[in-house]
Amino acid sequence: MRLRLLIEYDGSPFAGWQIQPDQPTVQAEVERALATVLRAPVGVVGSGRTDAGVHARGQVAHVDAPDDAAIDPLRLRRSLNGLLPDAIAVLAVEQSADDFHARYDARARRYHYHVAVTARALDRHARWHIKPAPDFTRMNDAAQALLGTHHFGAFCRTRSATLNRVCTVSQAAWVAEHRPGDWRFEVVADRFLHGMVRALVGTLVEIGHGKRPADTIPDLLATEDRRVAGPAAPARGLVLQHVTYEVPFEAPER
Amino acid sequence: MRLRLLIEYDGSPFAGWQIQPDQPTVQAEVERALATVLRAPVGVVGSGRTDAGVHARGQVAHVDAPDDAAIDPLRLRRSLNGLLPDAIAVLAVEQSADDFHARYDARARRYHYHVAVTARALDRHARWHIKPAPDFTRMNDAAQALLGTHHFGAFCRTRSATLNRVCTVSQAAWVAEHRPGDWRFEVVADRFLHGMVRALVGTLVEIGHGKRPADTIPDLLATEDRRVAGPAAPARGLVLQHVTYEVPFEAPER
Repeated sequence: MRLRLLIEYDGSPFAGWQIQPDQPTVQAEVERALATVLRAPVGVVGSGRTDAGVHARGQVAHVDAPDDAAIDPLRLRRSLNGLLPDAIAVLAVEQSADDFHARYDARARRYHYHVAVTARALDRHARWHIKPAPDFTRMNDAAQALLGTHHFGAFCRTRSATLNRVCTVSQAAWVAEHRPGDWRFEVVADRFLHGMVRALVGTLVEIGHGKRPADTIPDLLATEDRRVAGPAAPARGLVLQHVTYEVPFEAPER
Repeated sequence: MRLRLLIEYDGSPFAGWQIQPDQPTVQAEVERALATVLRAPVGVVGSGRTDAGVHARGQVAHVDAPDDAAIDPLRLRRSLNGLLPDAIAVLAVEQSADDFHARYDARARRYHYHVAVTARALDRHARWHIKPAPDFTRMNDAAQALLGTHHFGAFCRTRSATLNRVCTVSQAAWVAEHRPGDWRFEVVADRFLHGMVRALVGTLVEIGHGKRPADTIPDLLATEDRRVAGPAAPARGLVLQHVTYEVPFEAPER
């Protein structure tokens, strides 16, 4: 019986999603909690990795429960939340099709990158404080050149083993949040490369600070060279917000 | 020269606002940072105390800068934020009237208490996870009986030294937040007693769970006895959101 899980986490205490020896990771914690509840070792497949310190409100994973296990998804969710560290919460558990695959079936991923132009205390773990305030209109104009299908080698970590560096971006915009001075960058694509959103944000902020021309994105994309784009923005501002599948979660929040 | 400060803080690492010997407090940190920048010992007067673990987005304080100090408010704010721990942020600094008083001139205080009906990872430090989900309509109906001028002895910590326990509540409502399953209790009053909001929330949640009648608030108020009301809700859900003065802050967020 295949299950899919909707998972939120505060990335601060973890060395990212993916299991690594001798490091605390989200995947390892979820596998450990599942093994306890299901009384069998299980492997969890996520929609994709998130880097150390990156958060998620909508990570999705699938797992196969032993065939003889009697699973009540709501009960399983509660049991997992009782076992997991506070920094990880399972928002939903559902039975899925036996061939559902959290990674290969994902149609699109949505990331939000949160910034503030003045110091923040309450959400300092999930927001990058940018000094001085950049020009958001200029950044928004520049971001429009990301839309469409491009080779994103200029925004992919150089050590990434991923060969295919073509992504289709369907949304890329800076949005003012409710609180004056708080903004977020919303970006949706079919797939993302390693470090891509943080490299995009770091580059756009340089544009917003007037350090790069407003129309520089097409030139950067054409180089396919990570060294010419801007620095990576800090991990703490980044959230994997949503992963889109053909069949959405039924009741993600209860 | 009198200055007023708008201050945000994450209450988690502090033993509350007010200075206490051998304890980390917000007031002590703010006084220490001001003394460094102003090169003189100063005393800070807040709009009111917040308990250990309680947060603020809109605490207000005043301080007298030495007459010979040349003060640029924007520069002072930046200097303070450079010296303060990350859990405290000064959102605004303004010169005020010489007789402005952060506590006595406050017309109203607004508190928000944040809850979730399912486990949360990213804002677990600022939200109470209530199990099982209470009936918010019932809680909202019950809260209407708080409006107006009443003796709030039933919702005031028994050891409080405050003699006047009459408060005028002008708003008291549960509001659904953007994210399904997230709610907050908004309450505005001319003044609040020690532990009042947390006792109100603890009691309302008992009403929402059907443990108390929906029309019990007037009876509880009439007792003027803390022992008959419900338990205090956890500090971490509570935020001092706003303090109202005759003269508002000009540009609180930049």
